[in-house]
Parts: sequence; structure tokens; C-alpha cells
Amino acid sequence: MKKILVANRGEIALRIMRSAKEMGIATVAVYSEADREMPFVQYADEAVCIGPAPSNQSYLVADKIIAAAKQTGADGIHPGYGFLSENAAFSQLVQDAGLTFIGPSPSSIETMGSKLAAKQAAQQFGVPMVPGTETPLRDLAEAREVVKRTGFPILIKASAGGGGKGMRVVNQESELEEQIGLAKSEAKNAFGDDSVFIEKYVGSPRHIEIQLLGDKHGNYVYLFERECSIQRRHQKLIEEAPSSCLTPAIREAMGKCAVDVARACDYYGAGTVEFLVDEQLNFYFLEMNTRLQVEHPVTEMITGLDLVKEQIHIARGEKLSFTQADLTINGHAIELRICAEDPANNFLPDTGRLETYIRPQGNNVRVDDGYEQGMDIPIYYDPMISKLIAWGQTREEARERLIRAINEYRVKGIRTTLPFGKWALQQPAFINGQFDTNFIGTYFTPQSLRAENTEAAKAAAVLAVQLWQKSAAVQQPIPQPSNWKLRRSLR
Amino acid sequence: MKKILVANRGEIALRIMRSAKEMGIATVAVYSEADREMPFVQYADEAVCIGPAPSNQSYLVADKIIAAAKQTGADGIHPGYGFLSENAAFSQLVQDAGLTFIGPSPSSIETMGSKLAAKQAAQQFGVPMVPGTETPLRDLAEAREVVKRTGFPILIKASAGGGGKGMRVVNQESELEEQIGLAKSEAKNAFGDDSVFIEKYVGSPRHIEIQLLGDKHGNYVYLFERECSIQRRHQKLIEEAPSSCLTPAIREAMGKCAVDVARACDYYGAGTVEFLVDEQLNFYFLEMNTRLQVEHPVTEMITGLDLVKEQIHIARGEKLSFTQADLTINGHAIELRICAEDPANNFLPDTGRLETYIRPQGNNVRVDDGYEQGMDIPIYYDPMISKLIAWGQTREEARERLIRAINEYRVKGIRTTLPFGKWALQQPAFINGQFDTNFIGTYFTPQSLRAENTEAAKAAAVLAVQLWQKSAAVQQPIPQPSNWKLRRSLR
Repeated sequence: MKKILVANRGEIALRIMRSAKEMGIATVAVYSEADREMPFVQYADEAVCIGPAPSNQSYLVADKIIAAAKQTGADGIHPGYGFLSENAAFSQLVQDAGLTFIGPSPSSIETMGSKLAAKQAAQQFGVPMVPGTETPLRDLAEAREVVKRTGFPILIKASAGGGGKGMRVVNQESELEEQIGLAKSEAKNAFGDDSVFIEKYVGSPRHIEIQLLGDKHGNYVYLFERECSIQRRHQKLIEEAPSSCLTPAIREAMGKCAVDVARACDYYGAGTVEFLVDEQLNFYFLEMNTRLQVEHPVTEMITGLDLVKEQIHIARGEKLSFTQADLTINGHAIELRICAEDPANNFLPDTGRLETYIRPQGNNVRVDDGYEQGMDIPIYYDPMISKLIAWGQTREEARERLIRAINEYRVKGIRTTLPFGKWALQQPAFINGQFDTNFIGTYFTPQSLRAENTEAAKAAAVLAVQLWQKSAAVQQPIPQPSNWKLRRSLR
Repeated sequence: MKKILVANRGEIALRIMRSAKEMGIATVAVYSEADREMPFVQYADEAVCIGPAPSNQSYLVADKIIAAAKQTGADGIHPGYGFLSENAAFSQLVQDAGLTFIGPSPSSIETMGSKLAAKQAAQQFGVPMVPGTETPLRDLAEAREVVKRTGFPILIKASAGGGGKGMRVVNQESELEEQIGLAKSEAKNAFGDDSVFIEKYVGSPRHIEIQLLGDKHGNYVYLFERECSIQRRHQKLIEEAPSSCLTPAIREAMGKCAVDVARACDYYGAGTVEFLVDEQLNFYFLEMNTRLQVEHPVTEMITGLDLVKEQIHIARGEKLSFTQADLTINGHAIELRICAEDPANNFLPDTGRLETYIRPQGNNVRVDDGYEQGMDIPIYYDPMISKLIAWGQTREEARERLIRAINEYRVKGIRTTLPFGKWALQQPAFINGQFDTNFIGTYFTPQSLRAENTEAAKAAAVLAVQLWQKSAAVQQPIPQPSNWKLRRSLR
């Protein structure tokens, strides 16, 4: 592979091209008319405009992208995340055009794209599932039978689902019929497929995912976990690696499970298996993402691997150059997604110009972004401006470093999640590692960011760290608002 | 320690303040009138102007700095490097004022400040020395006696020396008297002390230094080595860790030696013991630097430690929180010093304005600098604009990443060592790790940076890497222009 076309935009396009350049591989950008001035277009060795701003006229048009690859002589296509990255038909078209798709096979993408098919594939390997149905729900009678087994509350989910669409919590028998109907119609609208299934509803869950790599020769490794429980509207805002709650034994069990899931669909490339974890550290298969994740940098920081380079090695047909035994967790990394959103106003997207935009620096701070000062944030795409990642020898050092970096970041002209990040990192629940996917709902209100409250939060954080250090010193558990326990790093 | 005054400027002031902020410690900057607009002044919680631009009216005036600490209520002073950092009297004054000096004791600084006293202190521990005199040279007769033992060529060095001043190579008997006279008069002019001594001249040496830490309780660790052989005018330009030539056994022997040297002067804090290493990997004590080194980031990158935080922990009287057994080398880091100098014109300092100044980004790239776009480089101080550091899993990955980052760095309005760095990193001698302190003299000419030559260099580099990879694959040594051998990293 001598020239790679990146079928994406913004930070992830830049990030992919950096790795390609380090490998001596030429780079091609494709861009919409709205993105003409973006840094990723400048950074590429060549760039091809593929149409107007709306994604369905540019970044989602497979033919235009493949034509751009042909025109520039690119021999590989990296899809990034989002857009066409999990589109089996696109992966197939790329192959059919005689190019290398830097990602898994069309059939792996297809299997894992259906939540039910994924569950069925995983189940042969004894991967733990949340109790529920494994096939599309036939009727209300079947639903009633299932609930006898699982008990309430349950979750109705769309088989083709994602992003929380077609998902309904049902607390009691009397709501069952109506909620199934609503879920089916939502699923039909969102995905053109009204298949739904039932799962037992796990309360206070953590969302923990395993990063894995597989080559085309059947070798697999897992690169440990990412803790992604801090979410708003089912979308992640803060991610970290490793998770503060896993034991080495459970980490290994989850890692092996993730590899089993990958093996179940002859997976190759970088992939992520998402799990729900309950307070007793039972874990359940949720789904597999067949692409690079937004939050992959935290894994890079604790393993020293460059995941994009590994994707390219795998796509070239090379064998993994290391085994599971070569891999260890080095320190701790935390990422904050900096989105053009107003946290004080229910995280509604904000738009405008980056009038001031100065990045933080310093050791073990990484900024992955796609804008420069003076640029407008286009309304057509994801509102993420940047990812700010900090590494530390311990979770506490990573947390302190990330706060320092947030304080150093200067963004004016647009509202962002930076103040939310600073607030969240100072919450005793975060410091103690005692949180679940309800973190924002439980602790955050629009008033949290008011000046007087941030001062109070700061004081509470200092106290929480002192308590935490004191308890670490005497090796006793600290009072815990939930059953989540922080597995302390050494030092 | 609740508030630290940084008695320095530019990149190192910013770097120190970042670590202090992460530890929840307030920061005070002192600055000269010329530095009023510098980022480090803005970044500090408080800032005090201490006088006009010339250092002897501001950054070198101990009383003004201590007065600024008193005025702001700072309880600790970090001297950075250069200026007063290795001034025993300043360290004493800080202590006398009831403040904590973040560095070693006045007596350690004093012992190591005299090259001969340092050699004498080290010698009790059997630290290897270059054969020569251990006391100031009395007369020509003594010199003739010594030369009978060492043979020619020899090196005459000033006891109070540094930066190559008072240093003379003597190749034959007939030059001896004249060169001793010249060295003595140069030493007298530069340091007010005409003591000189003789050392056997080591040809083709490498300059390799050991970073160490010692606490106030007698605990020591060494943080492995830094390879600093690529120098112009006895000043380092490219540094890396680990060195490409050491074996684990020699690394350990040098590390233990460095700790012995530190123990010889009851050292505490961060310190560096410099060694000359010859082609047979014999190593000889050169001197000890009793401060943070410019090139400390490469050590931070391979150990994960934050050396400034460690300095602060030690100054507070805390014990080291790890032992030698806890320390391992993780990957490889290379640093390029980006100086306002014209490599095509004998590295003469350049001045001017940073009309364009855009830093590289991406994973495992670190930029430590002290300027922003639009600023002038003041003529009063060191011409270093920035340090660009890249980490990789292997030396080859670090090298590729650093080249990528150099290509991404945009500096206009002033000449810098960036093109030199790109050239150097592509030299077969660098790629193969076969170089010594004569690297620039041997390979670099002002013509090296011409367009046609850089293209040729690029082609040679590709070939060198291919040869190197091929030889790595078959585990055979490649043809070597000198006896220096590259110790290959795994993978």
C-alpha cells in the first residue's frame, strides 16, 4: 500500500494521515465544499472535492469516493469512524474496485451490524448475554413468556439499532403492549426494519468496551478495556483506560470473550466489543463496533501502540507482530470530548466561529482536533471539535493533568463541553471511581457550572482526594454511595 | 510547599509551572522587561518584573529573585537550567531566606562545579576516569611525565571549565608548552581561574549521560541514559533515550557509577552524570550537572516519570516512591532542539520575528516551547525556540515520527535548526546508530541542506532503513563504517 485515501473529515482524517505519513505512505483527502479550508485538506498530499456539504451528497456517496481513489491512484481506503465505516456494501465496493479496505470484511461488518445476528454469532462461544430473546419478538404473548423469566424492568431494543433509537424501558406489565408498539414504529422509522427484541434491564450499569486486533491469519489480541460510562443521550463524553472498577481476572475474562466474539465472525482489523457491567461485575455482551472508535487514543496511551498503523499492517496482510503476553497496561489515560454544545442548556449543539482557539501543551497531553483558530464549526457534521487526552502514571495523575490541560485550553466564540469536563473530573464520584451510566443524570444540573457551585465542587474534590489518599494509606474502604469499588493503581 | 517561584524564563519556566499546577501548587514568574509579553508570564498565577533585559540585571540577580519570592509569599524556588541553577551561593541564599531550593544542597553544587573536585569525589568510589591528572597541573615537567603514561593525543581542560572554554587538544610533544599556556590564559579569562589538567584524548567518543534521582534520605535511582553525541560547538542538538549502542550490562554499570558519584557528594534532587564512551564501550566520568537538563523530556518519555514533580517531592523531604527494580525502559524517544540558528551558515544565531509559528500535533509528539506566533526572539538569551520530542515503540518509529513532526512544524520569519534535524535523522549513520560526537563535522556541510542534496539524502535514508530491516530480519550485522554497533530494539 503506497497511497491511502481517507474517506472521512476533521480530526480523524488528520489523525489517520499522520500515521500514514510516518509509515512513508502518501495520503489523499476527500472533502465536501463546506470543508474546503479544513486543515485535513491542507495536510493531505492530494485532495479531491466530492460534492456539497450534506453528507448524503459527499461523504456518504461510495461511488464518488471510489472514483477519487481511482483518479489519484490510491490503493487503500481508510473509512475512519461514522459515515461509511460500518457499511458492508461500501467495504465490498472497495474490494470490487481492486482496492484495499482498511477495516474488516463485508461479512463481518454485516453480521455485527445486526444486533441479533451478532448475539447469535457470539452465543456459540458462550459469551454472556443479558437474559432475553435471541430472535425478533413475534408477538405480545412471547413477550409475556420472556418477562416471566427475566422479570421487570426490561429493555425493548431495535435489532438494527444504535444511538438509543427504538429503545424503551418497560417497568410493568401494563405498559408492555404500548411500549413494544412504540419501539417497533421508532425502529421502522429510523432503520426501515421494525424487528425488536427484549433484554432484562440492567440498573446502574457501566459501559465498558474491549479493544481488539485480529490479523488475516487468525491471530487475535485484546488491548484491554475502555470505561465509557459517562454519557449524555447515550453518547460518550469522557472515556478512560483502564476502567477503575475491573479486577485483573475480570479484565482477562472480558478480553477473552471479546476475542471469541471476533473469532465468531472471522474478524480482522481493529474492533471493539461493548459490554454492560453490573455492580457485581457480571458482564454482558452488548454489541461489536467494526471500526476505529472515537476514544481509541486512551488505548494507544496505555499500550504505546498506534492503532491506525496496526490497521494498515493488518490490511496489508501482515501478521500481528506481538502476542497477548507481550501486552501490559502502562499507566492511565482519560479523554474528554470537546463538543460544540452548551452543557448548561441540556448539551444542545452550539454553532459559531472559533474566535480564540489555543491548545494546551505539556508532557503526556494529546489534542486530536481538526480546526484552527478563526474557523467556523460547520452545522452539517458531528459537533465534536476536539479530543483532549491526558496520560498519567496513575489515574489520579491523569485526572490532575487533564484538569490542568482543560484550564490551559482557550476556546472563545462557541460554547463547549470543556466546563462540563472540568466539573465532572472534580466530582467525588469520579475521583472515587464510583459511577455508572447515570452519572450525568444523577449529579449534573445546569446550575453545576455556576461560579459559586464550581468553587464548592473544587473544595469537595480536594476533600475527596484527601479522603481517598487517606483511605489508600490505611487500606480501608471509604464510604461509598454505590457498590462500585475503585481498584486502586499502585503508588 | 504551596507556591513556587520559577527563577527562569521561556520553555523551561512554562514546563515547570505545568507540573506545579498539576500538583495544586501556585506559581510565580519573575521576568525581565524584555520578557513582559512572554507566555510564561501570562501562565503564572502571579508575575514580578525584576529588571532590564540583560541577565546580569535580572535573571542572575539573586537578591531580586529572593525579594520577589518574599513579596509574593512563595515558599519554594525552582531555578530551571542555566542562570542561577548551578550557583551554590544562590542555593545557600535561598535556604538562608527560609525558602526551599528545588535542587541539590549548596555543598553538592560546589563540589560538582569544580571538575577536579568532582573527579576527586568520584574517584573514591572507583568510578572510571580518563587517564590523566587529578590535581591542577603544576608545570611543564609534570605534563611531560603524565604524557609518558597516557600517550598523545591529550586534552588540556580548565578545572572551572564548561562549554569548551579552556579546552585544547595536543597531538605532539612540540605543541605541549604553547597549548598549555593558551589553555591557562583562556581559562583565566573565562572563569577567573587558570587551573588546568590533562586527560588522555578519547577519539570518536560518544557523549552519554545518566539521569539520576536521589532523595534526602539516601535513596538513589538512575533513570537510564541519554545519548547526546550530536553536537555543534560542544552543544547538544539531538538527544535520544535509550542510546543505540549500550548493552544492558554496560547500562547498569554506568547507572551504578552515576549513583556512586551522587553518593560521593551526598547529592539529592535530579542530577546528571556525563560520561565519555569509547568504541569498545569503555566509559569515563566526565562531569556531573546538578540541575534539570534541557534534554530531560526524552527520559520522561521512556520512564513515564515527571522529573519536575519528582524534584518537588524530593525538595519537600519525601522519599522516592519507587526503587530501581520498579524502573524499566519503555520504547524510545528522540529530541531535536529547535534553535534560532542558521545551519547553512555555521549555526550562527539568527534573530527576528516568528511570523508563522504552527506546532505539530499527533500521538506521542511533545513540543516544549515558550513563544507564540508573532513574537520576536529576544537577542539577550539562549537562541533555543523549542524542543520537539517524539516517542516510539522502537527507535525507528520514534525517528519516523520525529521526521513527520518536523515536516508538520511551520516556522517562518526566522532560520532554525529544523532543516538540519530533518537532514540528520535521514543520515545512514544516524539510522544505523553509528555515530559519535564528530557526527556534524564528519557528515554535515552547508550544502547538505540544498534541495538536490536533501532528495539524495531521502533516497539514501530509505535504502539505509531497508538494509537495516533486512539485516534485522536475518540477524546479521550490516557493513559498518565505524565500530559503533546498533543494539536493536525488539520488534
